[in-house]
Amino acid sequence: MAVTTLKLVTIICEPVLEAKIEQDLKRLGASGYTVTEGRGAGSRGLHADAIPGSNLRIEAIVAPAAAERIITWIAEHYFEHYSVIAWLSDVQVVRGDKYVSG
Amino acid sequence: MAVTTLKLVTIICEPVLEAKIEQDLKRLGASGYTVTEGRGAGSRGLHADAIPGSNLRIEAIVAPAAAERIITWIAEHYFEHYSVIAWLSDVQVVRGDKYVSG
Amino acid sequence: MAVTTLKLVTIICEPVLEAKIEQDLKRLGASGYTVTEGRGAGSRGLHADAIPGSNLRIEAIVAPAAAERIITWIAEHYFEHYSVIAWLSDVQVVRGDKYVSG
Repeated sequence: MAVTTLKLVTIICEPVLEAKIEQDLKRLGASGYTVTEGRGAGSRGLHADAIPGSNLRIEAIVAPAAAERIITWIAEHYFEHYSVIAWLSDVQVVRGDKYVSG
Repeated sequence: MAVTTLKLVTIICEPVLEAKIEQDLKRLGASGYTVTEGRGAGSRGLHADAIPGSNLRIEAIVAPAAAERIITWIAEHYFEHYSVIAWLSDVQVVRGDKYVSG
Repeated sequence: MAVTTLKLVTIICEPVLEAKIEQDLKRLGASGYTVTEGRGAGSRGLHADAIPGSNLRIEAIVAPAAAERIITWIAEHYFEHYSVIAWLSDVQVVRGDKYVSG
């Protein structure tokens, strides 16, 4: 079965951002996403800005262009004032049309 | 220490599929797996077919041939009638023999 | 926005190891991490040594050299006596300086 390479976008954020980021994902090209609850910890927390307590992991599989739009939007709009990190990774799927909106 | 590249299979599915998919994984070459609970959401849910409410994330590290067998099996047997998505990604491990069955 | 490739370290372990591994991560170059609870299962569990019951997923984004230090340390110090697996994957981030300590 044919395999397509797409991007997995993973965002770890404060729970207060969930609704905003979900709207961002839809507007920027994600046809859906999953949410898992976790927690950040450490002397400096999840990164230099620290995310103590609980956090959310939001994931979406999207086309490469949408992935770049999403990660750039997250960095420009949330990195300064919120505890958020985000990364992209390459994933292989079958039936790639399931994941790409528009 | 020598690093080996294997495949991480990630499956997001309705909880009702857990036992079946775990049997599939074992039969198709996974020596084990982890399960995490999450939730899907969105106007169109996790993908075009939507997975409202809770879902499971099942992950296994396997050899590339087993990964292809698993993702093809999942697509052919579940995509039409269930809310399931699945993807592969490359991962590097040490002691690769720990993860490969058979 | 410029994208940097870093390593995502994922460790699945028994809960009893959490504090030790978090100290390892900090000492070996991770500026933070996230923790999610899951469970392992299967006839042979998560891998040949089996991780029945609950387990933790600890993740950190680090520079490639730190990633190699961490995964080697984990293998050498925990694989023999504990139920632990660990893997690395390539991830792309924006503002890579957020994730790299020192």
